[in-house]
Amino acid sequence: MKIVLLGSGNVATHLAKALKAAGEDIVQIYSPNLDNAKLLAGLIAAEAVNDLNDIKQNADLYIISIKDDAIETVAQALKDVAGLVVHTSGTTDINILSSQVKRAGVFYPLQTFSKSKTVSFENIPLCIEASDEAQLTILRKLANKISHQVYELDGEKRKVLHLAAVFACNFPNHLYALANKILNQNGLDFEIIRPLIAETADKVMSNLPENVQTGPAVRADESTLNKHLSMLTDMPELQNIYQTLSNSIKLTLK
Amino acid sequence: MKIVLLGSGNVATHLAKALKAAGEDIVQIYSPNLDNAKLLAGLIAAEAVNDLNDIKQNADLYIISIKDDAIETVAQALKDVAGLVVHTSGTTDINILSSQVKRAGVFYPLQTFSKSKTVSFENIPLCIEASDEAQLTILRKLANKISHQVYELDGEKRKVLHLAAVFACNFPNHLYALANKILNQNGLDFEIIRPLIAETADKVMSNLPENVQTGPAVRADESTLNKHLSMLTDMPELQNIYQTLSNSIKLTLK
Repeated sequence: MKIVLLGSGNVATHLAKALKAAGEDIVQIYSPNLDNAKLLAGLIAAEAVNDLNDIKQNADLYIISIKDDAIETVAQALKDVAGLVVHTSGTTDINILSSQVKRAGVFYPLQTFSKSKTVSFENIPLCIEASDEAQLTILRKLANKISHQVYELDGEKRKVLHLAAVFACNFPNHLYALANKILNQNGLDFEIIRPLIAETADKVMSNLPENVQTGPAVRADESTLNKHLSMLTDMPELQNIYQTLSNSIKLTLK
Repeated sequence: MKIVLLGSGNVATHLAKALKAAGEDIVQIYSPNLDNAKLLAGLIAAEAVNDLNDIKQNADLYIISIKDDAIETVAQALKDVAGLVVHTSGTTDINILSSQVKRAGVFYPLQTFSKSKTVSFENIPLCIEASDEAQLTILRKLANKISHQVYELDGEKRKVLHLAAVFACNFPNHLYALANKILNQNGLDFEIIRPLIAETADKVMSNLPENVQTGPAVRADESTLNKHLSMLTDMPELQNIYQTLSNSIKLTLK
C-alpha cells in the first residue's frame, strides 16, 4: 500500500517505523515544519513536504496523526483523494473525516509514546473504525500486520478507552513525578523507588487492580494517613491529592 | 543466624522465603492465629507458635513484621532477650523498640507484596537503621545477602520514603482500578489497557517521570479535558479526581 503520513510527532514516528518494518510503502511525510518532516522522512526513505498542496493525490491510505484540533483543517486538503483517510486520535469522531472525504476511518494505537524510547508495536492495542465494511477490511488487514491486538471499536467506546487511558497512564505518571518531588526535597533519589513502580504495574498484568490494592487507605489505617497528611502541610496541593485519592480508596471498602 | 519471625502476613512471608533461601535459620514463626503461623512455618520448616510466652529467648535476631499499631505490644514480650529486635515498618519509629529492648533496628523492604505473586527479593530496596553501629553492621550484612540495594536511612528519611511510596504505588494502583471501572461500565475489558500500564511504568525506569508526561493536561488541551469531565458527570467522585490531578499536571507547566 502507498501511504502518506500527515504528522511527525511521537505517534506518527512510531507508526511510520512499524509500517515500514511491515513492508508498507510510505511515500510522503507531511508536517507544517519542514525540518520535522525531513527528520522523520529521512528515517524511512520518504519524501518530506510542508505544503498541503504538495500532498500526493494517488496514495492508497492517508494517515493523519496530528493534534486533534488540527485534524479537520488538514482533512480539507484531502477532500478530493480517492484513497482511504484515517486519523489516529482517541477522542476525535470519525465524522470529522467522513463529512469531508470519500472514505474514512480511525487507526488509534493505545499507547504512550516518547520519541526517545522504542516500543514493540506488536503488543500495542490498535483500535480501528471505518465508514463502511470495505474500509474496515483494509484497516483490519493493515492493523493485524503490525499488532497482535486489534480491536474494532465505535467512536463512543474509543472515547471511553481514551478516558480510561488518562487514569491508567497520564495520572500514574504524574503521581510518579510527585513521588520524585517528595524524594528530592528530602535528598533521596528516584532510583530507590523504581523497583516499587515496576512491581506495582507488573502485579496488574495478571491480577485486577482492585484485588491487589495495598497501603494505609485500604487498611483504613487512620494513624498513618494522618501522619502522611501532616508531613504534607507545606505542600497543600499534594496534601489535597493525598486526601482525595485516599478517600476514594476508602470508598471501595464499603 | 537463628531468627524468630513475628508475623505471617505478606511482608513476613516474602522475607521468610528470602532469608531461608539465603541460608538463614528461621527457628520460629509467631502469629496470634496458629493456623497462619503453621502455614508459613510449614514452608520454611520452622516451629509455629501463637503464644508470646512461647517465643524462644535465645535467637540472634527477632523480626517483627506485623501491623504498625501492634508492634509495641509484641516488643514488650521481647524486653529480656539478648538478641537484636527489628521491625519492618516504613512509618514506625525505631524508638518504639529501643525504649523496650536491649538492641533495636529497622529492616524495611520497600516493595508491594501479595502472597500470590513471587518477587525477586534481590531487586527490592532494603532500608536499614539501628540503635548503634554494631547492630547496623549485623543488619547491613544480612541485608546484602538478600538484596542488591541496601540503604541506610534514619527514621525521618524512611518515613518520607514511605510517603513517596504511597504516591508511586498505592495511588497508581487505585487509578488502574478506576480505569477498570470506567472500562467495565462500557463493556470493555481491563486486558486492553494492560500494555499501556506496563509501558507507562517501563518508561520511568530510564527517564524521570516529569520528563515523559503525556496526555491532555500537559498539552493544556482544554477541549479534551472538558470532554472527559463531561463524560464523568454520572461519576462525580471520578470527575473530582480527574479535575484535581489535571490541575496538578497543569501547575507543572508554569
